[in-house]
Amino acid sequence: MINVKEHEQLSILNHSAAHLLAHAVKHLYPNAKFWVGPVIEEGFYYDIDLGDEVINEDDLEQITKEMKKIVKSDKLIKRIELSKEEALEIFKDDPYKIDLIENMPAEEIISAYKQDDFIDLCKGPHVSTTKKLKHFKLLKVSGAYYKGDSKNKVLQRIYGICFENEEDLEKHLEALEDAKNRDHRKLGKELELFTSHELVGPGLQMWLPNGATVRTELENYIRTKETKEGYDHVYTPSLGSVDLYKTSGHWDHYKDDMFPVMKMDNEELVLRPMNCPHHMLIYKNSLHSYRDLPIRIGELAPDFRYEASGAVCGLERVRQMCQNDAHLFVRPDQIKEEVAKVVNLILSVYEDFNITNYSFRLSLRDKEDKEKYFDDDEMWDKAESELRKVLTDLNLNFYEAKGEAAFYGPKLDVQIKSAIGHDVTLSTCQLDFLLPERFDLTYTNEKGEKVRPVVIHRAILGTFDRFMAYLIEETKGAFPLWLAPTGVNVIPVNNGYHLEYAKEIYEFLKENDIRTKLDARDEKLGYKIRESVTKKIPFTLILGQNEVDNQTVSYRKYGTEETVTVSKEDFLKILKENIKSKK
Amino acid sequence: MINVKEHEQLSILNHSAAHLLAHAVKHLYPNAKFWVGPVIEEGFYYDIDLGDEVINEDDLEQITKEMKKIVKSDKLIKRIELSKEEALEIFKDDPYKIDLIENMPAEEIISAYKQDDFIDLCKGPHVSTTKKLKHFKLLKVSGAYYKGDSKNKVLQRIYGICFENEEDLEKHLEALEDAKNRDHRKLGKELELFTSHELVGPGLQMWLPNGATVRTELENYIRTKETKEGYDHVYTPSLGSVDLYKTSGHWDHYKDDMFPVMKMDNEELVLRPMNCPHHMLIYKNSLHSYRDLPIRIGELAPDFRYEASGAVCGLERVRQMCQNDAHLFVRPDQIKEEVAKVVNLILSVYEDFNITNYSFRLSLRDKEDKEKYFDDDEMWDKAESELRKVLTDLNLNFYEAKGEAAFYGPKLDVQIKSAIGHDVTLSTCQLDFLLPERFDLTYTNEKGEKVRPVVIHRAILGTFDRFMAYLIEETKGAFPLWLAPTGVNVIPVNNGYHLEYAKEIYEFLKENDIRTKLDARDEKLGYKIRESVTKKIPFTLILGQNEVDNQTVSYRKYGTEETVTVSKEDFLKILKENIKSKK
Repeated sequence: MINVKEHEQLSILNHSAAHLLAHAVKHLYPNAKFWVGPVIEEGFYYDIDLGDEVINEDDLEQITKEMKKIVKSDKLIKRIELSKEEALEIFKDDPYKIDLIENMPAEEIISAYKQDDFIDLCKGPHVSTTKKLKHFKLLKVSGAYYKGDSKNKVLQRIYGICFENEEDLEKHLEALEDAKNRDHRKLGKELELFTSHELVGPGLQMWLPNGATVRTELENYIRTKETKEGYDHVYTPSLGSVDLYKTSGHWDHYKDDMFPVMKMDNEELVLRPMNCPHHMLIYKNSLHSYRDLPIRIGELAPDFRYEASGAVCGLERVRQMCQNDAHLFVRPDQIKEEVAKVVNLILSVYEDFNITNYSFRLSLRDKEDKEKYFDDDEMWDKAESELRKVLTDLNLNFYEAKGEAAFYGPKLDVQIKSAIGHDVTLSTCQLDFLLPERFDLTYTNEKGEKVRPVVIHRAILGTFDRFMAYLIEETKGAFPLWLAPTGVNVIPVNNGYHLEYAKEIYEFLKENDIRTKLDARDEKLGYKIRESVTKKIPFTLILGQNEVDNQTVSYRKYGTEETVTVSKEDFLKILKENIKSKK
Repeated sequence: MINVKEHEQLSILNHSAAHLLAHAVKHLYPNAKFWVGPVIEEGFYYDIDLGDEVINEDDLEQITKEMKKIVKSDKLIKRIELSKEEALEIFKDDPYKIDLIENMPAEEIISAYKQDDFIDLCKGPHVSTTKKLKHFKLLKVSGAYYKGDSKNKVLQRIYGICFENEEDLEKHLEALEDAKNRDHRKLGKELELFTSHELVGPGLQMWLPNGATVRTELENYIRTKETKEGYDHVYTPSLGSVDLYKTSGHWDHYKDDMFPVMKMDNEELVLRPMNCPHHMLIYKNSLHSYRDLPIRIGELAPDFRYEASGAVCGLERVRQMCQNDAHLFVRPDQIKEEVAKVVNLILSVYEDFNITNYSFRLSLRDKEDKEKYFDDDEMWDKAESELRKVLTDLNLNFYEAKGEAAFYGPKLDVQIKSAIGHDVTLSTCQLDFLLPERFDLTYTNEKGEKVRPVVIHRAILGTFDRFMAYLIEETKGAFPLWLAPTGVNVIPVNNGYHLEYAKEIYEFLKENDIRTKLDARDEKLGYKIRESVTKKIPFTLILGQNEVDNQTVSYRKYGTEETVTVSKEDFLKILKENIKSKK
């Protein structure tokens, strides 16, 4: 998906298109007052005060017509420079523009752009004539608080996009349509993967049986994989005392993201935003020698973060998440090898999920931000240069990003591009000299001295919630067989004649641990097959007289039109290979 | 374990022994003042005010000696009846006794018991002479608030037990010792199964790798078993809005057991004490026809209950638990069949865990208790008689208990006797006409009308926490192979000569999914074998020259002394059969 703000020419075009939009609205709604019309990643918008009038999606057609009229009449777009007094005079009927002008520095020359009977404040630059704005599309309309403050009036915000030619516009609209169809919230509903309810609350998703099946497979997959790599898994509670988070430093640097404290008798408990402190205590629970390290503590850990109810989004941004988390307690001489192992684990998982579009980011602190980051320059310099050296030694191709570190240390983040173009951190591997200090963690070295271990925080699938959102959008909900809620859908051609055989095959597959459904409803065959495709079930079996006579099964694989006939044993073999290959 | 309170003769004996204890204490601590000395299930105790003196375990020996002296001197125990005035005069130096006397009804004749130079208030009856109290034992001493109120003074509470003969006493002390050795808190620590930390908080246990391995096996076991029985599993969040619990009725009937509300902006969220309301919303998420029922929604569900910090106990009584929960949404005509299926599932699970000491309890409401129970007599009468009828029809041998129902409906509880004699509810199956009403749940019946389903709440393993406590005490931490954190411990006889072969066997077992450890430390063979037994590892492999030469393995099974030598393939076969049989 294109990012308009990053393209100079498209930025000018879309800025000009915002004026074109306002121009047309002014024609149709003479009392309209205009706030701002900026360029954004997705194109442009304009915030407009229409008094008591409300624009809906249908009205966009009328506005589009008027915009096209202005485009066709080919108006010149002219820059005008004004003094503050002149500007105040010209825009005297629009309190929003007055507000803007009055907040400009006293001596600044104010520029405006004029096209025919419409004038608007703007720094520019703009295209030279309205004719150049021919290839635009208005996308949607919504309400937006004036200055983003919920105590203010709601303005009408109209979104649009503009390209230099029709082909680019068409391509973009197709991509938008594709993204809409991939949207995990839409697919999550259609495929009954997850749901929410206002009585539960925003950002608190309930995983329905279909989604839960996928999640359990993901959980088993990563737990088994980690166990083979020498991880020990634990279960720790979702709560901790406020003192726990004061000890860890979360209280000083992360409190704003935490839920309110629960006070009870003389205790103060809080839902945990991260599970690191619990894992530190697990390490501390017994004595360790240098021979025992590395110790790798993993957990599928529910964590809780306070997000404003307006900021939550499907499974992507939630208030309760389940992390695929682990903490490695290592000797300083083991850092490199352990980071390498984590990177290899990440790459092995990506191969299983066919993730190829990723890049490594070394996330560093922002030295100026003393509030977000624990204040110990020496520790930071050591941790950052250590991690940079390890990544360099490992020949990883990485870029650096300031201000993206955790409060306790620098991170290697693995960034992926999602199917709808979002740049997200999927995996992470973090170096931490701070928490071992705060929790007074030790091991006995070869000389019998108590020394500090180093902690590596790492997550591979990130959170199961966000990973699920990613997977849904990547696969459009057509999960591979090993993950699919239903792997095989068995449909008898005729319930009267073939149901018994269908049942036999259904039982055979179930006994062999294939998630199978039998569709024995009194519906037409075509309807049942179509529904099987709509549900994106990997394999649909259609069993009729031929299959009964020859003791075979005929299957259609999702995404193909072809019907293949094989013995039930061969079919099972195909399924098992499919599951094993994870494709 | 014996329950002293339930045996008339033992009650008299122990009551008399409490006086004997006080008598001895009075000799040794002349300033002692005495509060009460009742008989309890476990024997007797006496609460004593010793001013600033503190009795510790060592002092019990001295007190025991003094008690024996009094026993030997064979003092008669005589009943005396007093008026209130006489009693006040006799006990004028003991403010606790004065308190007791003053709180007695005005006209009541007060009885006291006198033995030699000691007199104490008591209803009696008592034994006739101190000689009969020969077979006693003082068990422990602890602090106890006067009248149980933490604002009051701490008294010294001394516990003891008394039997009629030495044999019974010895048997009881052995049982006590056994219970102590089975105590899941003690074993949990020794076998590194779980731990807690004051920074996390009371009642919030952390499952260490060993315990977590057992739990994951239990989770997989029950989830697989339920899936085969037609259950669909979900994941729902740990939080809900206060309105959710107002809708369900928890707010009116269960609030005292819930954590404090978290207020944020205009929301009120609370940690859920039960997950029923979430499951009601999952049912409500789609439309249902009579053909779709029963629908069985299961979850391994974390729930949170407020327990006073003093009331929590290991994994048995916690503030965060994980329920093996499910809700069945059924038509009225399916109640009997579904309850029968739940009972069968319970019995099948009990067989797998070798649980034989159970009984069925029909838990009914207490009609008088309008606070605890939802107030709708008609609904209750219907639900209770329906459940009683189903249990009768199923030929279950059950007893009835008033005041043990859930606030929303009657329950079939399965009570088991734990290894240390506790009577606990393990499984439950509850009939609920209330929540379907409160959440307006419907399905379409054959006539196309919207009607209410009935909800069956059920839990098989109860909570994983309490079940784990039960399992630890039942097995003394010697888990069967399928559950054991480490299944096989491989020990080379000599690291120099046999380590390579030991590694080969270790890798072979690991590849075949056996949880295996290799003990390659530079320790003596005997030490390593003893440690393997202490850790209660089911199979210990001892590999020396014989094994290398013959390509065999020699194993000792936990609890036996015998060493058996077989090929590695046969050993694997033995392990696999062992896992399959769950024994």
